Amino acid sequence: MFNYYCLNPIAQVGLNDFTSDFEKTDEVNHAEGILVRSAVMHDMQFDEKLLCIARAGAGTNNIPLDRCAQEGIVVFNTPGANANGVKELVIAGMLLASRDILGGVNYVLSDKDNPDIAKAAEKEKKKFAGTEIQGKKLGIIGLGAIGVKVANVAKHLGMEVYGYDPYVSVNAAWNLSRDVKHVLNVEDIYSNCDIITIHVPLLDSTKGMINADAISKMKDGVIILNFARDLLCNEQDILDGIKDGRIHKYVSDFPNPTTAGQEGCIVIPHLGASTEESEDNCAKMAVKEMMEYLNNGNIQNSVNYPNCDMGVCETAGRVAIFHKNIANMITKFSACLGDAGINIANMINKSKGEVAYSMFDIESPATEEILKKLQAIDGVFRVRVVK
Amino acid sequence: MFNYYCLNPIAQVGLNDFTSDFEKTDEVNHAEGILVRSAVMHDMQFDEKLLCIARAGAGTNNIPLDRCAQEGIVVFNTPGANANGVKELVIAGMLLASRDILGGVNYVLSDKDNPDIAKAAEKEKKKFAGTEIQGKKLGIIGLGAIGVKVANVAKHLGMEVYGYDPYVSVNAAWNLSRDVKHVLNVEDIYSNCDIITIHVPLLDSTKGMINADAISKMKDGVIILNFARDLLCNEQDILDGIKDGRIHKYVSDFPNPTTAGQEGCIVIPHLGASTEESEDNCAKMAVKEMMEYLNNGNIQNSVNYPNCDMGVCETAGRVAIFHKNIANMITKFSACLGDAGINIANMINKSKGEVAYSMFDIESPATEEILKKLQAIDGVFRVRVVK
Repeated sequence: MFNYYCLNPIAQVGLNDFTSDFEKTDEVNHAEGILVRSAVMHDMQFDEKLLCIARAGAGTNNIPLDRCAQEGIVVFNTPGANANGVKELVIAGMLLASRDILGGVNYVLSDKDNPDIAKAAEKEKKKFAGTEIQGKKLGIIGLGAIGVKVANVAKHLGMEVYGYDPYVSVNAAWNLSRDVKHVLNVEDIYSNCDIITIHVPLLDSTKGMINADAISKMKDGVIILNFARDLLCNEQDILDGIKDGRIHKYVSDFPNPTTAGQEGCIVIPHLGASTEESEDNCAKMAVKEMMEYLNNGNIQNSVNYPNCDMGVCETAGRVAIFHKNIANMITKFSACLGDAGINIANMINKSKGEVAYSMFDIESPATEEILKKLQAIDGVFRVRVVK
Repeated sequence: MFNYYCLNPIAQVGLNDFTSDFEKTDEVNHAEGILVRSAVMHDMQFDEKLLCIARAGAGTNNIPLDRCAQEGIVVFNTPGANANGVKELVIAGMLLASRDILGGVNYVLSDKDNPDIAKAAEKEKKKFAGTEIQGKKLGIIGLGAIGVKVANVAKHLGMEVYGYDPYVSVNAAWNLSRDVKHVLNVEDIYSNCDIITIHVPLLDSTKGMINADAISKMKDGVIILNFARDLLCNEQDILDGIKDGRIHKYVSDFPNPTTAGQEGCIVIPHLGASTEESEDNCAKMAVKEMMEYLNNGNIQNSVNYPNCDMGVCETAGRVAIFHKNIANMITKFSACLGDAGINIANMINKSKGEVAYSMFDIESPATEEILKKLQAIDGVFRVRVVK
C-alpha cells in the first residue's frame, strides 16, 4: 500500500486511475509520492518516506531537482501531455497577431450601446484588418512535442514551414510532415520567416537567444511567438524592435512587468496548458509514472534520474540503488550481493549527468544487513527495496 | 475604350490588372462599369451608359439587383475570393470560444502595473481555462467555398467533422476531405456536434434557421459560430440559450444591438474578409469579370444574370440581348436578324429565374435599324452591341 499527497488540485480523471494499492493522504509526511502542478517546493523538507514527486506538466523549476536527486527522490514530469493544448494556443496567437481581432472585439464592446453599430463598424473595421497566415513562412525553433504539432498543422493551414532543431529526436523526426523545410542554421529562420515561434527548453545556451542581434537578422514586420519560457527572449530588445517597427507583434504566454500592457505585445496569462484535456492528460500521465515507479521501480520521464525499465519483478526481490555516476560502483554492489550468496537474475544501470540508478532482481530476498552494507558504500544516496 | 468608377476604395493590385483599354473616371455617369465594396447603391439612379457593377466581395444586398436586371445592368460578385480569410477567422473564433483567451488578455492589460503579475496570473488563470478543439465534433451547415475550407482544416486539427448541405456542388464535393461525415438531415448536426458553424446564403428558407427549436435539439454547452449573415440566427433565441446555459458561446462577425456586449457573445466587427489577401483577391476577380464582360459580353459570377461564355467574337459583330425569360424570344430575335439578311454564326441563350441573356455572333454588323427592332420586341430590357 502506498500513500500519495496532492500539493495542488489534480484532475480527478487522473486520480481515478490509481489502483486500490494507492491511497490519498492529507498528511504530506505520510506520502511515498507527491503530485504537484506549479506549487513551489524549494523550501520544503522531504520526509525520508518520500520516494518520488510527479509534476503534472512539463516545467519543473518549482522543484529542487538536485536536492531530490541527492536524497534519491525521483522527479517526474509529463512531457507532451499538454502539447496539443499549447499547439492550439500557438495557432490562436498567430491569428490574433495577423489581424487585430482583439482590437475589433473590444471596439464592439465599447460601442455596444450604439443603435447604429452595424453601420459604424463598417467604417471602423479597417483599423482591425490585417493579413492571412496562408502563404506565410513560419519558422519553428525547437521540434519537440509541441514544435512538431505546430509544424504539421501549419502545413495544412497553407503555410511554408521551416524547422530548426539541432537536437531533434528520432521520434520527433518520424512524426514531422515531410514538407517541413529542415533548416541547419537558425539564421535561415531569422532571414526567411514572416512568423517565428520558439519551442525550446530554457538552458544557459538558449536564454535570451531572441535578442537584438537575432532580431536585426529578421524580416521587417516579423511576428514572434513565445509559448515556451519568457527568458528565451530578451524582451527589452523585443520592445525596441516593436518601437522601431521591425517587429509587428510579440505574442507571449508569460505575463511580466516588461511586456504586460506594452504596445505591440499580446500577453496571455500562461494559458498554454490550461485546458481540461491538458490537465486530464497530465494527471493521467503523472499518476501512471508514479504507479510504475512505486510498484516496480521503473522510471519513465524523470527529469533528475535516467529512464530505466526492467518490467515487473519475477524473482524473489528487487533492490534499487541511487548513486553517484562514478567508477566501480557496480563492482561494489555486485560484490556485496555475491558475498552474501545472493544470485543476481537481472540488473540494469543507467546514468544521467552526475547521478546513476541501478536495479537488481535477486533470487533471494535482501536482508537488513546487506541493505545496510549497500547504503554504506561511498557514493550511494539511497537504497530502496522495491520488492 | 471603357471607363470605370470606384464607389469604394479598391485594392490597387486589382486595378493594376486593367488593360490600357480601360480608364478610371471620377464621374460616375461616365462609367460603363462601377466597382463597389459595401457602399449602399439602392438609392442611386444609373446612367444608361452603365453596363455592369462588380462587387469586390460576396454579399450583394447593398445593390438593387432586380432593378439592375430590368435595366440590363449585370451585377457581379466575387464568390470564394475571400474564403480563406473567413476560414481563418472561423478557426480563430472556435479557439476564442473554447477557452477565454480574450478574457485572459484583457486581464493582463488590466493588471499591467502589478510588479507581481507573473505570480498573480498563476492564481487568476483558472478563470480563463477551457477546452481544446481536438477531438470535438464540428458541424458545418453549408459546404460552399468557405464551408469546404473550414471542413478540410478542421480534420487536420483533429476534429470530427459533420457536413450538411442539400445543395452541395460537384466542385465542393470534389474538394472536400473524404473524412467529413456527410449528414443528410440538419438535425444530425444539432444532436451530435459540440461546435456548429453556419455558411449558407441568406434566403427566405434559411433566415432564422438557428432558432429556439433548433437550439432545443443541440447538445448542452454548444458553441455556435456565425460568419455568414446575422439574420440566419434568431439572435434573441440565442441569447435565451446562453442565459439558461444551453449555449456556451455565440461567435458572430456581425455587430448589432442584439448581441453587442452581451454575455456569452464574442462579436467581431465584420472582419471575415478584412485581410489584404482577401481584398486583393476580390479586387482582381472583380476587375477580371468586368473586363471580360465589357470586352466580350461574357458573364461569369453574376448574381442577377446567368453565366454565359462565347469566348472572343471572331465574326463581324456580337449583339447581346437582356430580356424576360418567356417563350418565343429566340424565334423573334433570329427572325429579326434573318429578315435583315444577317447570318448568325453562333448564338447562346441562358436564363436565370425571370431573366435571360442571349448573345449572337453575326457575320455582318448590326445596323441601327435592326437594333431598334430588337429593342422594340416585347420583353426585351436592353440590346447591347458588344462588337
